[in-house]
Amino acid sequence: MLVVMQAGATTSQIEHVLAAIESLQLTPHPLPGATRMAIGITGNTAAVDSGTIEVLDGVKECIRVTKPFKLASREMHPADTVVPLPTGSIGPGNFTLIAGPCSVENEAMIQQTAEFLLENGVYLLRAGAFKPRTSPYTFQGMGIEGLEIMKRVRARTGIGIVTELMDTENADAVEEAADIIQIGTRNMQNFALLKRVGRARKPVLLKRGMSATLEEWLMAAEYVMAGGNYQVILCERGVRTFSDHSRNTLDLSVIPPCKALSHLPVMVDPSHGTGRRAYVPPMAMASLAAGADGLLLEIHPTPDKAMSDGAQSLDFPAFKKLLDQLRQAASIFGRRL
Amino acid sequence: MLVVMQAGATTSQIEHVLAAIESLQLTPHPLPGATRMAIGITGNTAAVDSGTIEVLDGVKECIRVTKPFKLASREMHPADTVVPLPTGSIGPGNFTLIAGPCSVENEAMIQQTAEFLLENGVYLLRAGAFKPRTSPYTFQGMGIEGLEIMKRVRARTGIGIVTELMDTENADAVEEAADIIQIGTRNMQNFALLKRVGRARKPVLLKRGMSATLEEWLMAAEYVMAGGNYQVILCERGVRTFSDHSRNTLDLSVIPPCKALSHLPVMVDPSHGTGRRAYVPPMAMASLAAGADGLLLEIHPTPDKAMSDGAQSLDFPAFKKLLDQLRQAASIFGRRL
Amino acid sequence: MLVVMQAGATTSQIEHVLAAIESLQLTPHPLPGATRMAIGITGNTAAVDSGTIEVLDGVKECIRVTKPFKLASREMHPADTVVPLPTGSIGPGNFTLIAGPCSVENEAMIQQTAEFLLENGVYLLRAGAFKPRTSPYTFQGMGIEGLEIMKRVRARTGIGIVTELMDTENADAVEEAADIIQIGTRNMQNFALLKRVGRARKPVLLKRGMSATLEEWLMAAEYVMAGGNYQVILCERGVRTFSDHSRNTLDLSVIPPCKALSHLPVMVDPSHGTGRRAYVPPMAMASLAAGADGLLLEIHPTPDKAMSDGAQSLDFPAFKKLLDQLRQAASIFGRRL
Amino acid sequence: MLVVMQAGATTSQIEHVLAAIESLQLTPHPLPGATRMAIGITGNTAAVDSGTIEVLDGVKECIRVTKPFKLASREMHPADTVVPLPTGSIGPGNFTLIAGPCSVENEAMIQQTAEFLLENGVYLLRAGAFKPRTSPYTFQGMGIEGLEIMKRVRARTGIGIVTELMDTENADAVEEAADIIQIGTRNMQNFALLKRVGRARKPVLLKRGMSATLEEWLMAAEYVMAGGNYQVILCERGVRTFSDHSRNTLDLSVIPPCKALSHLPVMVDPSHGTGRRAYVPPMAMASLAAGADGLLLEIHPTPDKAMSDGAQSLDFPAFKKLLDQLRQAASIFGRRL
Repeated sequence: MLVVMQAGATTSQIEHVLAAIESLQLTPHPLPGATRMAIGITGNTAAVDSGTIEVLDGVKECIRVTKPFKLASREMHPADTVVPLPTGSIGPGNFTLIAGPCSVENEAMIQQTAEFLLENGVYLLRAGAFKPRTSPYTFQGMGIEGLEIMKRVRARTGIGIVTELMDTENADAVEEAADIIQIGTRNMQNFALLKRVGRARKPVLLKRGMSATLEEWLMAAEYVMAGGNYQVILCERGVRTFSDHSRNTLDLSVIPPCKALSHLPVMVDPSHGTGRRAYVPPMAMASLAAGADGLLLEIHPTPDKAMSDGAQSLDFPAFKKLLDQLRQAASIFGRRL
Repeated sequence: MLVVMQAGATTSQIEHVLAAIESLQLTPHPLPGATRMAIGITGNTAAVDSGTIEVLDGVKECIRVTKPFKLASREMHPADTVVPLPTGSIGPGNFTLIAGPCSVENEAMIQQTAEFLLENGVYLLRAGAFKPRTSPYTFQGMGIEGLEIMKRVRARTGIGIVTELMDTENADAVEEAADIIQIGTRNMQNFALLKRVGRARKPVLLKRGMSATLEEWLMAAEYVMAGGNYQVILCERGVRTFSDHSRNTLDLSVIPPCKALSHLPVMVDPSHGTGRRAYVPPMAMASLAAGADGLLLEIHPTPDKAMSDGAQSLDFPAFKKLLDQLRQAASIFGRRL
Repeated sequence: MLVVMQAGATTSQIEHVLAAIESLQLTPHPLPGATRMAIGITGNTAAVDSGTIEVLDGVKECIRVTKPFKLASREMHPADTVVPLPTGSIGPGNFTLIAGPCSVENEAMIQQTAEFLLENGVYLLRAGAFKPRTSPYTFQGMGIEGLEIMKRVRARTGIGIVTELMDTENADAVEEAADIIQIGTRNMQNFALLKRVGRARKPVLLKRGMSATLEEWLMAAEYVMAGGNYQVILCERGVRTFSDHSRNTLDLSVIPPCKALSHLPVMVDPSHGTGRRAYVPPMAMASLAAGADGLLLEIHPTPDKAMSDGAQSLDFPAFKKLLDQLRQAASIFGRRL
Repeated sequence: MLVVMQAGATTSQIEHVLAAIESLQLTPHPLPGATRMAIGITGNTAAVDSGTIEVLDGVKECIRVTKPFKLASREMHPADTVVPLPTGSIGPGNFTLIAGPCSVENEAMIQQTAEFLLENGVYLLRAGAFKPRTSPYTFQGMGIEGLEIMKRVRARTGIGIVTELMDTENADAVEEAADIIQIGTRNMQNFALLKRVGRARKPVLLKRGMSATLEEWLMAAEYVMAGGNYQVILCERGVRTFSDHSRNTLDLSVIPPCKALSHLPVMVDPSHGTGRRAYVPPMAMASLAAGADGLLLEIHPTPDKAMSDGAQSLDFPAFKKLLDQLRQAASIFGRRL
């Protein structure tokens, strides 16, 4: 349920409404807007008579949200969410790039990649310290040491860090090291992990599960938001189908309905989506055209020597060329890059 | 197998090679190029010693084609295919629009649509006289009468006609009425129909089957080309997956590998791909960005009164707006529209 | 709509109702039952007032059928359909085997297979004269000559013939040669072909399309039945999914809902479903247990020398062993074999 | 790599080999067999010269395992794994039933269900204390209190408990309460959780991921086994496809290839696989026929009042009827029940 306050509602009126909601054993979520405050209510609202709240001072109206996702729905939050970052915000008007190697391999390559990105006006670096690998016998990432490397590179260069959290044990360490905490496709319905990042103070980039419907994806975002962390960025990365010409089937057609149902930003990962570096640039351009808010891209100083996912990583010149093409096209699509 | 002739090979040398191929019980396909002639060979070439042909006068070399599709492969035909039409060619450099209603409903609406398209610089009209319908009890199209309507509109306006052929019985009539013969998704592996249009004198627009791999799609094109009709235009229209946010899952990621493996033009049908008119414009833009050669779009003077597929049809103002956006973006992607 | 006649309705009363239905521009389908006659009505029944028919002499009641498939639905025909054949009926109480090679390769092997089957109490032989092949360059079947071979073997041995029809051109020839006309998975929505076999006098075995929903499959059966041929046998043969451990994903779970929604018999083809002969026997047993009415099996005198699909064909001893296991288990599942 | 010891190898020879493997920075896994000991080696064995180990006393031979899964592969462990339990073993010759409600709702219903099962010769009860729910606002299970209820019922009745572990935080509590720890479909690639149960002393029932290939599923089992817990039971529960006639597409065809590639027992969950109680019995019978080692079934004293998954739960009389049918059929398939 959504409580819309009157334009001139006072702080004490708002606090009174919050208290009234809590006294009904429900959870209030203050949602400040440009002209007025709204308050989302989650919990078992079915039994609540909206009249109980509508009579309170300063309340304009109560609106029932028809979707199973509430905080993630556009009904409850009509304006597009903006995720503010020290390096510039993610959301409407911007087209944000996050780029970097699949894994942290050593400090030199992270430093080199950060410098390259900053020189080219890209302010977010992605790299995995913890890697979800199908086999227990393959490289699982550098772990805490990888996080330390990224922290030092961030301190030296000012670049923002996007890195994956795979389990609750390492949540504090990743939260400290990351500017954006990534939840991977295999963990989209790891509910314990979603609840944990719902308590984090950093934005969460939530990849779509390999066979997740749009509703399930938004419900996973709802888990994070229900915990109080409203800074969720969705990321399409390809779904699993019969189709074998690419590693996954990049589902760009999810972007328009996702934008219609939710206010959250949507990025696209064409590297995992296609699995082949030659196919990354056209799908990156198509993501921009389809209405995405940005891209997650794998790049590597020497892709053929990468410890993981080299086949889908762009080298620096190829990335630079793509960047030029994206910048040339962005304004056509109403985006700054 | 591909026979590449020397740059200055004479007509009689070429004819001698053609005859030699036929004498081996194989089928030669002359493939004229900008600077030299090539000759594709289909049939059971496994048993043929390429030396037999390489020694002939005027032959430069013989190349084995490694893919199961031969005439459709870029190995055999490195340059992009151009499909010439009275109204302008489909292929590299161009971005071609084909638009119109799902079905021919009456002569007035076809005339009205044709005039609207021509006024807006669109030269190809699509409309179905024969409709593949899931239920035997729903409107199956106007049939021959629908073809007659389109022939009259073409005669009056000069617009090109794209219409679906569903069975061999109506092949002559459709071939006469159409500038491009459409083969629908349900008939992508209707081999009798593919063989029939392989003998047609009109280009064939071949929609991807609902669960066809890229290789199967190109093999379907190969059926048409093996019959001697090399003017095949591929059309992606969404594949069937678990995903339920759209009618089908529009697979734009098939475009880059399709372009890598084949020289045939690829168009996209975002109307069937999404099933919802609001999602058509972003996916149309994304198709352009992904490298498609054009679009097949459903438009209708009054979509809410359409006899079929109204939910996915754009009305005229929405189409005009999309056209403007496409024209604005086309040059960025190296296309004329 | 379904018209249920009174138990003692006379022939002239029935004929009067049939005429009344036709005068409404609708199509009546007489559906004789054990104790009374019913009449299915197809066409645009939405506009018909059932009262118009209910007042006619001999009519007990009119029932609206809620499913889009009418003649194929259990609502309209509560009892299981029995398909009578000279060699024994397909349907409840029986578990029918149809076995044979993928293709007719020569007369000796068809004769040998027919003799082997009859010795083992199997009365239906399957073999393809026309083969739907992905590539235009591979063996397409022996064609009419293959049909002639099967006709001679049938004449000599009395075995029933099941063979695929791929196009309307060969419909007369296949209808003459076959005891059951098979429609392949690629043609499940070849509506021209479905309409043609709707006029045939032989039962139709309708394979499920590679990505057909249950409703689409029953609608395809409806096309055949709407033409007047009520002898349709459904055949599950695996659907296309991401799963790669078998050629297709054999969907045995479709059997219970199919039996709930429709009265038509359902057979299973575990040979195409699995693509590997070692997996055929357990899936054959599972088909029996899941409630199927029989099996379509590929067997070959020398599978390793088969011209097509050898990897999924059982040799004669393996088939005989499976037959013994099926016979041992059949009575547990209330079936005769 | 697999080290096969000689039939008469002594304990000190075996210990010497184990030490030698560890000195190579690899992990040895002793695999006792009926007639001789084998030792699996995991880790980066690519660099190891098998000759180094083959020369040790008591070693018969070293075998390279070609599959990416090692401990889970039949190459390394040719005999079927038997999972011993106080209530009877899971594995060859047996057909094991695990039944119970979706969630622990209260102590009375768990006690009632346990008594019902034991009266009917079923010794394992399943029920969830922690429930993976798509929505954060729906019943998430009774948690620790649910575990306490099951512990008390086990103490009173002697029934074995199967319950799901969703996160590492509750691992100790679930390990103590459960006789078999269930890992759910959404956590099949929750690698932190797999590693944790790899250190558990209880068998693990590993459900197949919603879109997991057979290889990925066996690799998930490998994660558990690589941690030293070799008691893994696989459980097929339906995969996600386009098909909409059932909640998921129960993939019984995975059983034969799974048995060919791995020695681990495979159970089937037809309740989640179909989502409809009417379809559970035929798919349960089909699972037995396809070669499964047992079933996981949802039953409830009053399904229509269940707090979750009531639509797919059998009531007690329906379960009893199915049990009779399974017992009648089991011996045909070489199983005791």
